[in-house]
Amino acid sequence: RRLDKNTQDNLYFDSYSDVTIHEEMIADTVRTNTYRMAILKNSKAIEGKVVLDVGAGTGVLSIFCVQAGARKVYAVEASSIADQAVRIVKLNKMEDRVDVIKGRLETIDLPEQVDVIVSEWMGYALLHESMLNSVIFARDKWLKPGGLILPCKAELYVAPINDLVVEDRLNFWSTVKDQYDVDMSCMSDFAKKCIMNKDITVNLVTVEDVLSHPSKFAELDLHTVTLEQLKSVRGQFHCECFGSSSVNALCVWFTVTFPSEEKPLVLSTSPFKPETHWKQAVLYLDEPVDVMQDTKVEGEINLFPSEESARHICIHVDYTIGNNKKNSKTFSIPDGYCETQS
Amino acid sequence: RRLDKNTQDNLYFDSYSDVTIHEEMIADTVRTNTYRMAILKNSKAIEGKVVLDVGAGTGVLSIFCVQAGARKVYAVEASSIADQAVRIVKLNKMEDRVDVIKGRLETIDLPEQVDVIVSEWMGYALLHESMLNSVIFARDKWLKPGGLILPCKAELYVAPINDLVVEDRLNFWSTVKDQYDVDMSCMSDFAKKCIMNKDITVNLVTVEDVLSHPSKFAELDLHTVTLEQLKSVRGQFHCECFGSSSVNALCVWFTVTFPSEEKPLVLSTSPFKPETHWKQAVLYLDEPVDVMQDTKVEGEINLFPSEESARHICIHVDYTIGNNKKNSKTFSIPDGYCETQS
Repeated sequence: RRLDKNTQDNLYFDSYSDVTIHEEMIADTVRTNTYRMAILKNSKAIEGKVVLDVGAGTGVLSIFCVQAGARKVYAVEASSIADQAVRIVKLNKMEDRVDVIKGRLETIDLPEQVDVIVSEWMGYALLHESMLNSVIFARDKWLKPGGLILPCKAELYVAPINDLVVEDRLNFWSTVKDQYDVDMSCMSDFAKKCIMNKDITVNLVTVEDVLSHPSKFAELDLHTVTLEQLKSVRGQFHCECFGSSSVNALCVWFTVTFPSEEKPLVLSTSPFKPETHWKQAVLYLDEPVDVMQDTKVEGEINLFPSEESARHICIHVDYTIGNNKKNSKTFSIPDGYCETQS
Repeated sequence: RRLDKNTQDNLYFDSYSDVTIHEEMIADTVRTNTYRMAILKNSKAIEGKVVLDVGAGTGVLSIFCVQAGARKVYAVEASSIADQAVRIVKLNKMEDRVDVIKGRLETIDLPEQVDVIVSEWMGYALLHESMLNSVIFARDKWLKPGGLILPCKAELYVAPINDLVVEDRLNFWSTVKDQYDVDMSCMSDFAKKCIMNKDITVNLVTVEDVLSHPSKFAELDLHTVTLEQLKSVRGQFHCECFGSSSVNALCVWFTVTFPSEEKPLVLSTSPFKPETHWKQAVLYLDEPVDVMQDTKVEGEINLFPSEESARHICIHVDYTIGNNKKNSKTFSIPDGYCETQS
């Protein structure tokens, strides 16, 4: 079922008109505090300047920008949460500084060019929902030469993992005999087929499950990246396992970096860092593969928009584990998966 | 969007072809152990007899029936999990006793009438997915006069609750000011509209949240209930609150009872009992209402199949709290809600 672009977009913007997703984002203190710090630390560049907030949601980032001294913030939001942003801006007595513009970035008009673009555009596996396209469009159309983009860089990482929850779930069927005196051990194969499928699974990965140092496989410079380049974000990865274990998945996550006069501020969704609502993107192999210390897990990862819906991300992985032959698998986010179900 | 009956049925049976739902049901020890006990305790009635298992799934109840001495079990299952049931029956060396029949109860043929019908047909709020219709069809077509039905009775209960999670969620927006120095308290209204909506919410209700003794509002005798009666299962309820609190929802749950020579065996999904995968069905009022000790919460509840999809349950509630005026609200299970998402 291929939805036309307008239907896709409406479904996408509808999903942001519910309160749950905004509650989750505001309650994500790693996310919101990092943006707050990044904006306040860039107050020299923001003071007296004009800011464009792409996908403003409840308007919280726009308000941070006013607090950092912005002369004017254009808060562009296509979903009906824009109505709440208007109320929040009013409640904080910033109506003269923040203009909430309800509409799509691609079609709205601004009275002037802007000095700064701020946006929280990241989706699952960084690119799900592909809101980055709107940021690039905004940059090319509305950002003054030499203007600031917050954040200014995104990086993608991968590491092999042993997902213990899945290991337990596959093993569950062998425990039924003891529990109810019925042997269901033959269900493990079926369970493996169902669970280790082609879905991009959004899950919290625990540090203990990660089997190697992460490998960075792609980097996007927000000042230069093009819409064309987003059609395929790819790169190679090289990992070496810490010790004996079984790899049943690859785990993908991202960081974004904010410019700073001091050391750069990084918002990380790494399993080694405090959890965020993005969690991690888990890609299950078809079969668990045993590894030892220094076993190499290598290959190439390619993120690209689904043919059915440009807002849905697909991930193709070519990988080799130790001396096993090369494998390939293409994953996608299941239909109907939105941030509220995370 | 009104789906034709075939599409609805296919979606319904598809949802049972994934392993997760079966894992959840088998891992629900309250459910599976109660069925096991009920079947083994009825072994006098089952020994040497013919059993029909309606919606057999992985076939676990059919195997319990063989363990109770059944001469023959017809395990009817429409979804492709039937293929797994065949493998499990074989693994347990019961191929001569259990016939797995892949098909819909309404269209399959059996070589003989049966002495016993066993079925785990209960959905959320008892009647979601309306598999009970198939059990009634099976009873009328295949059960010998005086035959046994396991379970033989279902009861529906309701109690007013104060859902603390929702109270916290509504209050969350007033805490944002302290956290990020942005006043978002005006979001509470919007949050209330989004959260206290018309969805039947499947949630674990904790004992502390329940504000009165439960009131039984409906009872179904599986030996006599008709398809016509299932078009509207209704009854009155009367509750008196324990003490001062705020009612923000009604909580609906069910029990089913198995026949027994000793005291009847009850599978309960009450919030006062150990949790099951059915949890409870929570119906949010539009507004919280303050109550005191002995405040009456009364009214009528009507469960009926949705017009869009007969497998989807709707619940209409007329209720009066204390001296407030009578209110009405109609709830339904959100689209795409299946047991695996619980």
